[in-house]
Amino acid sequence: MRVFIAGIDGYLGWPLAIHLRAHGHDIAGADLLLRREWVAEVGGTSALPIATREERLQAFQERFGVELEFRLGDLTDYDFVKACVQDFQPDALVHLGQMPSAPFSMIDQAHCVWTQQNNVINNLNLLWAIKEVAPAAHLVKIGTMGEYGTPDVDIPEGFFDVEFRGRKDRLPFPRQAGSWYHQSKVHDSHNTHFASKIWGISATDVMQGVVFGTQIAEMGDDPRLRSRLDFDQCFGTALNRFCCQAVIGHPLTLYGRGTQKRGFLPLADSMTCLRLALENPPATGEYRVFNQFENAYSIQELATIVQAAAANLGLKVAVRRYDNPRAEMEEHYYQPDRQHLLDLGYRPTRDIKSVITQMICDLLEHRDRIQAHADALLPDIRWKGARKRSEVIG
Amino acid sequence: MRVFIAGIDGYLGWPLAIHLRAHGHDIAGADLLLRREWVAEVGGTSALPIATREERLQAFQERFGVELEFRLGDLTDYDFVKACVQDFQPDALVHLGQMPSAPFSMIDQAHCVWTQQNNVINNLNLLWAIKEVAPAAHLVKIGTMGEYGTPDVDIPEGFFDVEFRGRKDRLPFPRQAGSWYHQSKVHDSHNTHFASKIWGISATDVMQGVVFGTQIAEMGDDPRLRSRLDFDQCFGTALNRFCCQAVIGHPLTLYGRGTQKRGFLPLADSMTCLRLALENPPATGEYRVFNQFENAYSIQELATIVQAAAANLGLKVAVRRYDNPRAEMEEHYYQPDRQHLLDLGYRPTRDIKSVITQMICDLLEHRDRIQAHADALLPDIRWKGARKRSEVIG
Repeated sequence: MRVFIAGIDGYLGWPLAIHLRAHGHDIAGADLLLRREWVAEVGGTSALPIATREERLQAFQERFGVELEFRLGDLTDYDFVKACVQDFQPDALVHLGQMPSAPFSMIDQAHCVWTQQNNVINNLNLLWAIKEVAPAAHLVKIGTMGEYGTPDVDIPEGFFDVEFRGRKDRLPFPRQAGSWYHQSKVHDSHNTHFASKIWGISATDVMQGVVFGTQIAEMGDDPRLRSRLDFDQCFGTALNRFCCQAVIGHPLTLYGRGTQKRGFLPLADSMTCLRLALENPPATGEYRVFNQFENAYSIQELATIVQAAAANLGLKVAVRRYDNPRAEMEEHYYQPDRQHLLDLGYRPTRDIKSVITQMICDLLEHRDRIQAHADALLPDIRWKGARKRSEVIG
Repeated sequence: MRVFIAGIDGYLGWPLAIHLRAHGHDIAGADLLLRREWVAEVGGTSALPIATREERLQAFQERFGVELEFRLGDLTDYDFVKACVQDFQPDALVHLGQMPSAPFSMIDQAHCVWTQQNNVINNLNLLWAIKEVAPAAHLVKIGTMGEYGTPDVDIPEGFFDVEFRGRKDRLPFPRQAGSWYHQSKVHDSHNTHFASKIWGISATDVMQGVVFGTQIAEMGDDPRLRSRLDFDQCFGTALNRFCCQAVIGHPLTLYGRGTQKRGFLPLADSMTCLRLALENPPATGEYRVFNQFENAYSIQELATIVQAAAANLGLKVAVRRYDNPRAEMEEHYYQPDRQHLLDLGYRPTRDIKSVITQMICDLLEHRDRIQAHADALLPDIRWKGARKRSEVIG
C-alpha cells in the first residue's frame, strides 16, 4: 500500500514511516520541521537526540534499501499539498501534520489564531487534494480523545443513538474540547465528516489518547531512526514528562488533584493501531471514528506507576501537586468506548510498567539534556489569564 | 447601551445600526465592505440601490443628529479589532462581520479555505479583544440554524438533556452543517462556548433562520438608509431571491423537490430579536443559545406564497423545480424549538404575506437592475463537483 504521511518528521510521523515500511508499505511524506522550532521556542528540546532530516533519510535508505520521499513544505500551501498527492498517488494518507499542543495554543491571541489557522487549513487542503487528485484514497486523520472533553455519560466512538422527546436518531457525539488546540481538532473532525458526506471520501477519524514511549522495535539500534521525546510544559505530554522528571530527580508534576482521567497508549501500540486502520480501510465513502487508547488512568495513578518504576531502578522521585494552570474538571466520570480497533485485531500492550521502565532506561543516558532544559518542565501558561509559574500545593 | 457592530455595512448590520440608534443606543461599527465585492464577483448586485459608506454616514447623522463611528478595517487583523473595542468600550458587541454564503464557500478550494479562515479568525479576534480590553461586554454572535442540519429529532436551543446507557448529562446539541460556510459557523460556536467557559465571557449565540425583507420602519423614506438586497445564487437567500424573480417574471427556482424545510423570519423581526438579546443580556459568564426564526416553511410553500402575492399585484410567475446543486436531504423531519426569544417578549410578525407584498412593491421599481443581472439567478455551484448550470426538472 502507498501511504503518504503528512507530518513525517514528528513524534508519531517518523516512527510511523519506519513501522509501515517494515511492514512492506511504500511511504512518502511531507513536513516543514516546525515541531523542532516550537519546542525550542518554549525552551525545550528533545530528551533523545534526533537526527536531521538528511540523516534520517540516509538511515532509512540504509535500513530498508529504498529512498524515502520526504518533501519539505507547508501543508497550508494548497499547491504544495496537491502536488504531493498528485505525484505520489497514495492509497492512503495519514494526517499527523499539525500543531499538537494545548498549552502552546493557549499562550496568547497569536498562538491561538495560528494554531487554528494552521490546523484547520492544512486539514482542508488534504481533503481538497484527495477530492481533486486521489478520490479513492483513504484519509486517516489523527484527532484526539480530548475532543470529547469529560461528559457525565459514556463516550462512544464518534456517534451515538439518541432518543429525544420520543424520536430517535444516530447523531455525532457532542464535542466539548478544552483548549484552542483541541478545538481545532474538533473543527477538523466536523470538516472531515462533511467532506466524506458530500464527496464520498473514505475516512478514519482517530480520537487518540495520550501517547507515551521512546521507541518501537522496528527502529533497531540505529540512533538516527529514533523519534523525538519532549518534556517541556507544551509538548511534553503527561507520561513522557513524568519519565523525564524521574531521571533527573524532579518531582512529578500533578496539575491540581491529579484525579483527571485520560486514555493512554504506548507509542508501539499507536503504530499498530494506525497500521490496522490503514490495512482495514472503511467502505468507499464511509466516515468512521476510532477511539484509540489502551486504558484510562488518572494522572495520579500514572505518577505512582512512574515513581515505582523509577524506584526499581534506584531513582528516588517525589510526586507533587501544583496549582492547576488549566481550566478543567479534576473529578469527573470517564468511560470511553474502544471497541472498533479491538474488532480489527488490536491487542493492547499489557504491561505499562515495562514500557515505562524501558523509557526511563532510554532517558537515563540523556539526563544532562533534560537537566539543561529543566526550566521548561514547570507550567506557566494559564488557561484563564497571564503567565504565572505553578506552585506546589501539596 | 453602547453597541459595537462588527460587519456594520451588511444586509443585517446596517439596519441594526439604525434600529438600535432609533431605540436610544450608542452605536459604533467596523466593516471592510467586502460584501459589495463578493456580490460583484459572482455577477450579482443589490436589487435595491445602496448608498456608499460616506453617504450612509451622512444620512445617519442627518437622521439622528449624532455621528456614527464606522471604521474601515479587516476583522482578521487583531490590532484593528482590539483598538476598536478598546476605544469604544462597548457594553455589547454584535458579530455580523462574516462571509455568509453557503454556495460562495463551495466554489473551490480557495473559497472554502478563505471562508473558514476569515470567519474563524475574526470570531477568535472578537473573543480575544473582549477578554483583553472589555471583559464585561456581552457578545451577540450571529450563527445560523443551518449549523444543526436536519436531524431526525427535535432541535433544542443549543443544549439538550441526554440519557445514554443509564446516565444523564446536559450536552451541546450535535451540529451537522451542510456547507463549508455553515461549518465555519459551527467552529465559531464551539470557540465561543469555550471562551465563555474559560474566561467568563457573556455570550448569546444566535442560531438565526433565513432573513427576508427589504426594509424596517426606522429607515423611513431616506433611500440612503436602505439596506442591500441580493438575489444572486450565492448571496440571494431563498425568499429574497424569489421576490426578485417574481418582479422580472423569472420562474421561482426550487432546488430539487422543494420540500426542504427551514426557519425564516422578516428583517424587522431579526432586528427586534437582536435588540431583545442585547437589552436582556445573559448572566455574567453565561453562554446561551437562541434559535431565532418566526416559522418553518418548506421552500415549496414559500414559492406558493410569493406566487400568490405576485398574482395579487398582477404579476404572473411560474414555479419550477431545478436539479439540486446542493447535497442536502429534501424530505426530512424539522422541528426546532424557539422559546428563548418568546420568553424575552418577541412576538413574531404574523403576516408573512404582507411582508412579501411590500418586498415585491419595493423591488418593482428596480426590476431593471435585477433583469440586468438575471444570469446570476440560476445556480451553477455544485456541492459535489464542477460548476454546471442547474436545469429544469419539473
